[in-house]
Amino acid sequence: MTSGTATTADHLRAALDGPWAAVRDEARTLLTGEEFTADPHLDYKAARARVLEQMKAIATMGFAERGFRRENGGTSEPGAAVVSLEMLAYADLSLWVKSGVQWGLFGGAVENLGTERHRPYIERLISLDLLGCFAMTESGHGSDVANLETTATYDPQTQEFVVHSPTPSARKDYIGGAAEHARMAAVFAQLITGGENRGVHCLLVPIRDENGADLPGVTTYDDGLKGGLPGVDNGRIVFDQVRVPRENLLNRYADVAPDGTYSSEIENPSRRFFTTLGTLVRGRVSVGGAAAAGARVALSIAVRYALRRRQFSDPDTGVETVLLDYRSHQRRLLPLVAKSYALAFAQNDLVRRMHLVQTGQDLEAGAQRALEKRAAGLKVAQTGHATRAIQECREACGGAGYLTENRLVTLKADTDVFTTFEGDNVVLTQLVAKELLTAYADEVRDLDALGWVRFAATMAGDVVRKRSGVRQLIQNLKDRGDDPIEEGDLSRRAVQLQLFADREDYLVRTAAHRLRARAEDTGPFEAFNNAQDHILAAGSAHIDRLVLEAFIEGIADIEDPDARELADWMCDLFVYTTIEENQAWYIMHRFMSVERAKAIRRGVNELVDRLRPHALTLVEAMGVPESMLRAAMLDDASVFDRAQPISVPS
Amino acid sequence: MTSGTATTADHLRAALDGPWAAVRDEARTLLTGEEFTADPHLDYKAARARVLEQMKAIATMGFAERGFRRENGGTSEPGAAVVSLEMLAYADLSLWVKSGVQWGLFGGAVENLGTERHRPYIERLISLDLLGCFAMTESGHGSDVANLETTATYDPQTQEFVVHSPTPSARKDYIGGAAEHARMAAVFAQLITGGENRGVHCLLVPIRDENGADLPGVTTYDDGLKGGLPGVDNGRIVFDQVRVPRENLLNRYADVAPDGTYSSEIENPSRRFFTTLGTLVRGRVSVGGAAAAGARVALSIAVRYALRRRQFSDPDTGVETVLLDYRSHQRRLLPLVAKSYALAFAQNDLVRRMHLVQTGQDLEAGAQRALEKRAAGLKVAQTGHATRAIQECREACGGAGYLTENRLVTLKADTDVFTTFEGDNVVLTQLVAKELLTAYADEVRDLDALGWVRFAATMAGDVVRKRSGVRQLIQNLKDRGDDPIEEGDLSRRAVQLQLFADREDYLVRTAAHRLRARAEDTGPFEAFNNAQDHILAAGSAHIDRLVLEAFIEGIADIEDPDARELADWMCDLFVYTTIEENQAWYIMHRFMSVERAKAIRRGVNELVDRLRPHALTLVEAMGVPESMLRAAMLDDASVFDRAQPISVPS
Repeated sequence: MTSGTATTADHLRAALDGPWAAVRDEARTLLTGEEFTADPHLDYKAARARVLEQMKAIATMGFAERGFRRENGGTSEPGAAVVSLEMLAYADLSLWVKSGVQWGLFGGAVENLGTERHRPYIERLISLDLLGCFAMTESGHGSDVANLETTATYDPQTQEFVVHSPTPSARKDYIGGAAEHARMAAVFAQLITGGENRGVHCLLVPIRDENGADLPGVTTYDDGLKGGLPGVDNGRIVFDQVRVPRENLLNRYADVAPDGTYSSEIENPSRRFFTTLGTLVRGRVSVGGAAAAGARVALSIAVRYALRRRQFSDPDTGVETVLLDYRSHQRRLLPLVAKSYALAFAQNDLVRRMHLVQTGQDLEAGAQRALEKRAAGLKVAQTGHATRAIQECREACGGAGYLTENRLVTLKADTDVFTTFEGDNVVLTQLVAKELLTAYADEVRDLDALGWVRFAATMAGDVVRKRSGVRQLIQNLKDRGDDPIEEGDLSRRAVQLQLFADREDYLVRTAAHRLRARAEDTGPFEAFNNAQDHILAAGSAHIDRLVLEAFIEGIADIEDPDARELADWMCDLFVYTTIEENQAWYIMHRFMSVERAKAIRRGVNELVDRLRPHALTLVEAMGVPESMLRAAMLDDASVFDRAQPISVPS
Repeated sequence: MTSGTATTADHLRAALDGPWAAVRDEARTLLTGEEFTADPHLDYKAARARVLEQMKAIATMGFAERGFRRENGGTSEPGAAVVSLEMLAYADLSLWVKSGVQWGLFGGAVENLGTERHRPYIERLISLDLLGCFAMTESGHGSDVANLETTATYDPQTQEFVVHSPTPSARKDYIGGAAEHARMAAVFAQLITGGENRGVHCLLVPIRDENGADLPGVTTYDDGLKGGLPGVDNGRIVFDQVRVPRENLLNRYADVAPDGTYSSEIENPSRRFFTTLGTLVRGRVSVGGAAAAGARVALSIAVRYALRRRQFSDPDTGVETVLLDYRSHQRRLLPLVAKSYALAFAQNDLVRRMHLVQTGQDLEAGAQRALEKRAAGLKVAQTGHATRAIQECREACGGAGYLTENRLVTLKADTDVFTTFEGDNVVLTQLVAKELLTAYADEVRDLDALGWVRFAATMAGDVVRKRSGVRQLIQNLKDRGDDPIEEGDLSRRAVQLQLFADREDYLVRTAAHRLRARAEDTGPFEAFNNAQDHILAAGSAHIDRLVLEAFIEGIADIEDPDARELADWMCDLFVYTTIEENQAWYIMHRFMSVERAKAIRRGVNELVDRLRPHALTLVEAMGVPESMLRAAMLDDASVFDRAQPISVPS
């Protein structure tokens, strides 16, 4: 792509494509066909059948193998696996979800929680000979996985587990594949042996026979219509004393001997549980990536439309004005494109980190946990961005945006649940914040009362940031950030980083204080709940900082000067709009003067002015091929890209 | 409802129901049947047929007659008409839209733009003997109605108009009823007679024969699937030299004589055009009302779910916590309920004003124009609120919220286009702001340069507010507002009003300055575009102030002390959250100290705490009967309203 005749857009796209650019290019070629798109006229039963057919074609492309280790019949390329499946999102999000359930969630559970004895399943699930589902969530417990109610009770007489749904709320729910296609479920259940509950474990439970009929003791239900994703057969599963062999326990971290003896290398049940969940981090990484991909498709459509659609004539010239020449339209769309850039860089960085951890190239203590925190944070940022950006795109395209043939409403409906699944965004933000508070507390745990006060009075930010694996480039910028930071020099990266870090540090520090102060009066839960908005703000500030760092690092790799300049402006736009969204906080906490805050607002306007002429380049660089946009209005020039103004009396 | 045994919820509901409470109660009884709900499993062709059947039942209820004058076979109750149709939104929004197209838009055009010679149509359209559509928008021109391209050229030879679509972008688009059911269209077209274009006029054009086939020269197309509203048959119409009799011109404001002579009592073509559009204000009033109704349904579902759904156990007690006991969940939902209260009062006030104008009880000069501005502003506020609130409700109900059986996704999809139709929200906000700027300019037009500067330096707010018809109660509060306003006394209504008014006045005044200063350098369009974000902010501030005034006036009518106290707290919550959303502005423009801004944030938390125990009452008062909620999860107590916590190792 970056040949001698490469355009600025090509250079930018190469940067945004990141380490797996070749995988993306391959997918762009393989997936453009009509056969990989959704047909919105199908009812949901037919839509599911179509997606299953599409998956069979995908299964021949080698995408799925990348996600599995060589010894299991894969090619050990987790990074490439996430990226190539992400590209399915450009074609159809139902296809992406159903593929993710089969190869990512179900396959990932077998590979990462199973052992050699489960290896035969993997080849079969890669080829779709075995269709599976991932039965974690229950109607009664979604976010609170530790309290799932399904039980798997070991019976030493027969050396079987008895899987059972003891209450109505124990039914498995929203399970992709459970309504129709899955033959086997990876079931998360409380493992009971010797009369003792050992906590949540995963085991393989056949649920349907060859003809698709429920097996004895299993009752499946169809979740029916949803807001979107019609091609995914979500359903419910209720177990009535279903027996499976002892060997069906995925026994990588814990096992039950034939006589019922429980063993695990991880003694602490809570740590065992979180280790189990941690191996499934790829799901969160993938959801964030697919959400961001959906937002890129929507923004590509809306910006291209805004470059052609005219409305109202300029009274000075009589010529009708292109939508993107309106300031309000620029402010509506361009900051969202800038945020898409930021998140693309952040996602590339995240996938790279995941790849290093999962291929054993990053063995640093804490790397796994840091990866989980980062994946949670970016899942929140990307899915939240998708919801907001796609909504804005729909509205920015007016009535045309509401027609299914222009795709925006489908993107909105399909991605809508992304803020919920693979971890509710509020719960995940809280999880990120709790990690920050814990890191902070570790550092200060041993201080006595006076020491605490003194410590807290200093900037504790270094504690927080030291733990998040900042690369050298950022560190250098930060070091330079110790120079006096003059007012007005907001385009300096060091100043920007400092502003983001200040917000995070201050929020974490004060949240910790508040918790400590209140916990003595009201107990920890009440204290936490009382400070919940504060804690969530700390989590969000952390995520913003991670994203900015990734943006800066991404720009550093761009050599072409024009592409780099555009990326720099986009980074400024991301920074300015993020600060603008939080400007009340900055002013109230004296990190920013009123004058400076006003300069930020002016700066956003100046930046959208400056970027306006490059809008098409900026969109092309997002890398959604025109052939994959599939919005009828973009092909309908005679209708939307109007000719001359007509003469009207005034 | 307010009998001796009336509950607090009853008293509050009576207040929120407003002047047409009896109409609402009647509709609550008439519309609860299963037959008025949507069946999400129907394909869109079948869904349209079902809605048409539903309309036939509605046509027997007397709702439609209310919207027409006695001499036309109606009962002359425009307020009751808007309110009773609004209640259809509780049942199904497709039904509401299609009814609104038939009786509101099509019927309204015939009644308000036609004359005696069109009277026979009205009886037929009330009874559905004549199905019509409202063909204003074209693919090329939605917001810019003055520049529609369809032509209606008068031919004196045959005394006919020739209706024609001269370009691809002239096709009528998104027209409800055009795809299947409409037999006649109220077509907006450039009227040409004697070789001269007289601007946009409306005339009746038969488009289909008795069997539903397109008439000669008419080609209709189906817009196909949309984001929502499957029961509405939106379509396109292209005219190829279609001839209709001269009498088909709706000639209330202008006529063409048999020889082609054009006449109008309104000489100025621009005034004539805006007078024509102004008679259609009921459409905007209705859209805002229906959007707000949709938001009330969603909030009723989400809050009730949050009162039963439990997740995560309180570590102190081991009991699982009800969602609405989480601070984040309270902050998510309760301010939206408060805003729904504010908008309900504002809508009642708007409908009352519309009723007075349209029944000739308010003949004050400028009343019509003030009504149009207010309707535009509240349409923006209500449809924007619906989009945001329903999205939040969906997310707050997690995976269950994504299932169609729980209705939230349908509400979201159906209301999504409300921000666009009957006037795009950005364009309408701008229209409101332009009116404010014009009022301001009128007042200062005659000042010379020095006078202008002196004038502008004073608070010009009185100019703005004097024109918007503030009632005595508000005026009294404002007069008291001249007392010194102490810091911290934010719960005083006079202080709150002052803060809202300050924001509006300042934004209008400074926008006017900015426009004037720049217009000299760059020309008016460039100046306007450059200040567009500023102008839109002024419009929003104005809308916020209108809504607050309506809330305060609404509370004044509540006699029951408990109901009144709750309403007072809800008003505070509305005020605090609105100020919180704009707190950067308040601080930056020195209308609020940092300390006061922090008090606002604390105040929101205190208010949601205080309101939490009353959540069910607050929801019941919104007046959506439980029988009309139709969310499966609310009937599924055994699943979501869980029993005891289970024992898990830790």
